[in-house]
Amino acid sequence: MMYNIDKLYESVAKEGAVCVGLDTSPSYVPSSMVKNAGSGAAAVLDYNKAVIDATFDVCACYKAQIAYYEALGFEGLSAYAETLRYIRKKNGLVIADIKRGDIADTAQQYALAHFAGEFEADFVTLSPYMGVDSLEPWLRYAESAGKGAFALMRTSNKGMRDFEYRELKDGGRLYHAVGDKLSALAADHMGVYGYGAFGAVVGCTEREEAVEIRRKYANLFFLIPGYGAQGGAAEDAAALLQNGNGGVVNASRSILKAWIAVAEAAGDVSAYQMDNRKAAKFAAESAYNEAVKMRDAIKNAVESKKGTQ
Amino acid sequence: MMYNIDKLYESVAKEGAVCVGLDTSPSYVPSSMVKNAGSGAAAVLDYNKAVIDATFDVCACYKAQIAYYEALGFEGLSAYAETLRYIRKKNGLVIADIKRGDIADTAQQYALAHFAGEFEADFVTLSPYMGVDSLEPWLRYAESAGKGAFALMRTSNKGMRDFEYRELKDGGRLYHAVGDKLSALAADHMGVYGYGAFGAVVGCTEREEAVEIRRKYANLFFLIPGYGAQGGAAEDAAALLQNGNGGVVNASRSILKAWIAVAEAAGDVSAYQMDNRKAAKFAAESAYNEAVKMRDAIKNAVESKKGTQ
Repeated sequence: MMYNIDKLYESVAKEGAVCVGLDTSPSYVPSSMVKNAGSGAAAVLDYNKAVIDATFDVCACYKAQIAYYEALGFEGLSAYAETLRYIRKKNGLVIADIKRGDIADTAQQYALAHFAGEFEADFVTLSPYMGVDSLEPWLRYAESAGKGAFALMRTSNKGMRDFEYRELKDGGRLYHAVGDKLSALAADHMGVYGYGAFGAVVGCTEREEAVEIRRKYANLFFLIPGYGAQGGAAEDAAALLQNGNGGVVNASRSILKAWIAVAEAAGDVSAYQMDNRKAAKFAAESAYNEAVKMRDAIKNAVESKKGTQ
Repeated sequence: MMYNIDKLYESVAKEGAVCVGLDTSPSYVPSSMVKNAGSGAAAVLDYNKAVIDATFDVCACYKAQIAYYEALGFEGLSAYAETLRYIRKKNGLVIADIKRGDIADTAQQYALAHFAGEFEADFVTLSPYMGVDSLEPWLRYAESAGKGAFALMRTSNKGMRDFEYRELKDGGRLYHAVGDKLSALAADHMGVYGYGAFGAVVGCTEREEAVEIRRKYANLFFLIPGYGAQGGAAEDAAALLQNGNGGVVNASRSILKAWIAVAEAAGDVSAYQMDNRKAAKFAAESAYNEAVKMRDAIKNAVESKKGTQ
């Protein structure tokens, strides 16, 4: 059996390293689409489907941030479940960005919720604070169903310095201690392309640090946030890849709101929202163009990196 | 305006320090109740209501572990929402045990989900790994709506040693660094009884460490897991209280499964499940008795502690 991480590796090799983040707020959706859908949550689902269809051949996978759906209550969670189902039915891969982390009995319940049933995803994100026993129940799904996970290691937000970055008495920083444990877990569940079923969330960061992290944790597949809206660039992301693979680079707002950027540049946002179908088509095309631009920028950065090595 | 943490303080003063954990698995519910309810999720809701009614005057608050409900899909989440609503309608206090932790934009969406709308709770639990900026969006709800939160600090599971317990280069352990930040946040949002709106999750632990933690973080209200099923005792919990307040001690399984323990001791579990109403009454009474036993054990431990000081 192949792990999902192996499928993700193949997807990156074929379609590039972009992970399209579906952190979809109703405020990103053209007003005519919201009106047509009848509710913010229904509009989010329509919008997600349009973006998924448009970007399917130019991205490696999708990531759905559950918070945006929970904020819309049951209707939002229904849009969440439908979004995951839509991607999986097309044989796409989807990461449930849920950052769960709890004692083993509870983790087992969470795994039931997100690796099976109505909210089934291919991967989840996890928070490591409580330790390895909080991660282990998820791991069992690697062997039984190929499932994968990305645990928080070194994120790209400002608050990262508060704890993740703290230096330990025994040497290294807290995120190194997390990386060491994750790397050991990965070694016990190795896929066919040299990456474990369990990877890590590592944000775009200073180049030197990225190079060190990539070298030190060669068997960890990275989920890389912080591109675009959060300030990271293609070169930063490329530094966290190995031969252009071994990681996916997430962008959410820059892709979901690409149509707004284009419309604003043209000087009239409302003109692009008037007609429901035209607006959907325009938003989808803008998302596609942005994803392609990002995919190619990362590809070029990977090529330049090879040139300098 | 009083913070919810002030209401919780008053509740502890009046009803004792027990927090009834509603981590309700359908397997804890008498079979006749499940049959009568028609589904596991509906049975969980019926069971919760019976336990809430029975324990309402002998506990300080409730804690609902969302994982157990997510595992049952939409029906489970409906039981979760109904459970929260049931407690709040009775003017009880409920902690949503969700352990969220994400970048600020996402945290804002989560706060919308759990401090308002269909899943509104009085308190949440949070994971601090990503740093203070991941906690701040929740804090705003302290001022606007009295809401509170407990961030993970020093838990009682085995894996706690992996990261929480790591010694830092600058002195102290990781959980101290977290406690220091939380204590500073609490100081900016102080309630009327000397505790900040933001508290911490601190598990039952070795006595000496508990005494040190309690002394060092005097302005933090503690949510204390690890009692009963997880091995902690009344004396351990009392060490984390100040004059019997400043914390709530959670027990889930020992209360929810109290009827099973009684029935097993009587030698015939199935006899106690035959009739739907009798089973509910028996389970509720057993939960009540267990909560009272725990409340009194903590009270006695607090008195003995006073005697030795």
